[in-house]
Amino acid sequence: MTRMNDMSFDLKQAEEKINKLSHLVDKSIGDLCNSSPEGIPQRLWESMTYSLKAGGKRVRPVLCLLTGEACGASFQDLMPMAIACEMVHTASLIHDDLPPMDNDSLRRGKPTNHVVFGESLALLAGDALFLWAFDHALRELSKIGTFTACSILEALGSLLKASGPFGICGGQVLDTDPESYGQEDKHPWEVARSKTAVLISSSVAAGAILAGATFEERSAFADYGDHLGTAFQIVDDILDVTGRSSEIGKTPGKDQVQGKATFVSVYGLEKAAELASGETCRALEALALIERDISVLRAFPEILRQRVR
Amino acid sequence: MTRMNDMSFDLKQAEEKINKLSHLVDKSIGDLCNSSPEGIPQRLWESMTYSLKAGGKRVRPVLCLLTGEACGASFQDLMPMAIACEMVHTASLIHDDLPPMDNDSLRRGKPTNHVVFGESLALLAGDALFLWAFDHALRELSKIGTFTACSILEALGSLLKASGPFGICGGQVLDTDPESYGQEDKHPWEVARSKTAVLISSSVAAGAILAGATFEERSAFADYGDHLGTAFQIVDDILDVTGRSSEIGKTPGKDQVQGKATFVSVYGLEKAAELASGETCRALEALALIERDISVLRAFPEILRQRVR
Repeated sequence: MTRMNDMSFDLKQAEEKINKLSHLVDKSIGDLCNSSPEGIPQRLWESMTYSLKAGGKRVRPVLCLLTGEACGASFQDLMPMAIACEMVHTASLIHDDLPPMDNDSLRRGKPTNHVVFGESLALLAGDALFLWAFDHALRELSKIGTFTACSILEALGSLLKASGPFGICGGQVLDTDPESYGQEDKHPWEVARSKTAVLISSSVAAGAILAGATFEERSAFADYGDHLGTAFQIVDDILDVTGRSSEIGKTPGKDQVQGKATFVSVYGLEKAAELASGETCRALEALALIERDISVLRAFPEILRQRVR
Repeated sequence: MTRMNDMSFDLKQAEEKINKLSHLVDKSIGDLCNSSPEGIPQRLWESMTYSLKAGGKRVRPVLCLLTGEACGASFQDLMPMAIACEMVHTASLIHDDLPPMDNDSLRRGKPTNHVVFGESLALLAGDALFLWAFDHALRELSKIGTFTACSILEALGSLLKASGPFGICGGQVLDTDPESYGQEDKHPWEVARSKTAVLISSSVAAGAILAGATFEERSAFADYGDHLGTAFQIVDDILDVTGRSSEIGKTPGKDQVQGKATFVSVYGLEKAAELASGETCRALEALALIERDISVLRAFPEILRQRVR
């Protein structure tokens, strides 16, 4: 804890800023979803926007905005990239909830996409959001004129890698395909890295890349995101056991029912909480080299940790 | 037919070139699939490459290579973009065959992905291929150094738009969601445009964009692809009625069983064949303004037409 006390941050102020950005993301997503574009079947649009508007904490886009701002870009310019991170996340949740996968009927406190729109449309809404994420970001970021074509390519490339077979698609396979399970003690770490941390890390990095951060800074931000994301997954595993559906917005106790090797099943609740603390410390260590105003990013892991208290 | 005779092309030579390019695409895809990359679960890789290697006519990548070559780029440089077009197409086929969608067990003459790997893995293999298409193309095209970052962004943007909610995802909804059916006589045209023509048109355009074609040329190529793609879908509807599974590589007669409004159900076989001819003529007309060596592109619709004789 010494290291954390070394770093000064005002927790309340950080929470306020995170909430403000979360609302800003909600507002931007709401405006986009109300724009009724042409050339898309109405029912597909309803299905996509149902899940995109369904809320959640907007962790990924908020992190993208925070690092981008720390490196000198404006929230307005960064927003298409931030929304792309949320679209990818939402797409993966829609598919994750489908009957052949986790078969869940509750997400973010609402009926899951396929419960409302049917399996076929939910499948296509997920596909559409995965691809629209990049289509939207590419088009809007190119229009703005603030970022170079190279930065846009690099930021999109980072998010694409994190989303595809080397990222969350691979992570979902590790998490759901019994034949792909590895050694029990390594498995939760591998799932956390490739299912959760990789997308959080890429969201953090994308803001920094667009804003023209140095190679060292990007690398530090990506490390921060990796450890923060791993802590995030550990907390998620803990909440699956200790949380109520009203708190976590999805059906609790699913991991045990499905016989998944999680941080809790492998290490127990107490040790899992310790591991989460360890990861948040490492996330903060990664930020040590960055000489920019990153007080809110420093506070982020602590705010996350409080979820399990 | 006068117009077609005006345009000189050697059909046999064109067929040889198309076959050569189709083999070149097969070889490149084969090499990529044999590369055993790190950081991806083995079973996901097997599932993705099973469908990607399963063949088919490679129409989209061949068209991308042909227009790109006509505008001055090399096949080698264009290949990552061409493969991306095939990956997107393959991803959409995997999802299209899933039980909640068309529920087909045969594709390209082989058991469909979910029959071999299960529904959950097939779903993720489709997701992974959709995203890897753009990840792979972005990374490899950036490495080559031949194309500008702006051209790469524009070519990827074109393929992204054609793949997402404003492209084939929307087309799939029109094709499979009864609540999204439009007027019977318009419906086959809308499905053909958004399910088939949009991706063929974008594959044609992507090669030209990368190779630095003028705005007028790109627009002409995109028009060509639109009409060629529509002809392609009409022929597909005809073959669903007249073809045998050994010829078309999938289960015939599905459209009628599913009660879909196709060109054949709406217009009858004879009129549908006429409409296909009309679309191939319009495809050729679109090429009239292009002053480059495009003899093989001119021959393409005729080679396609011969499939229904």
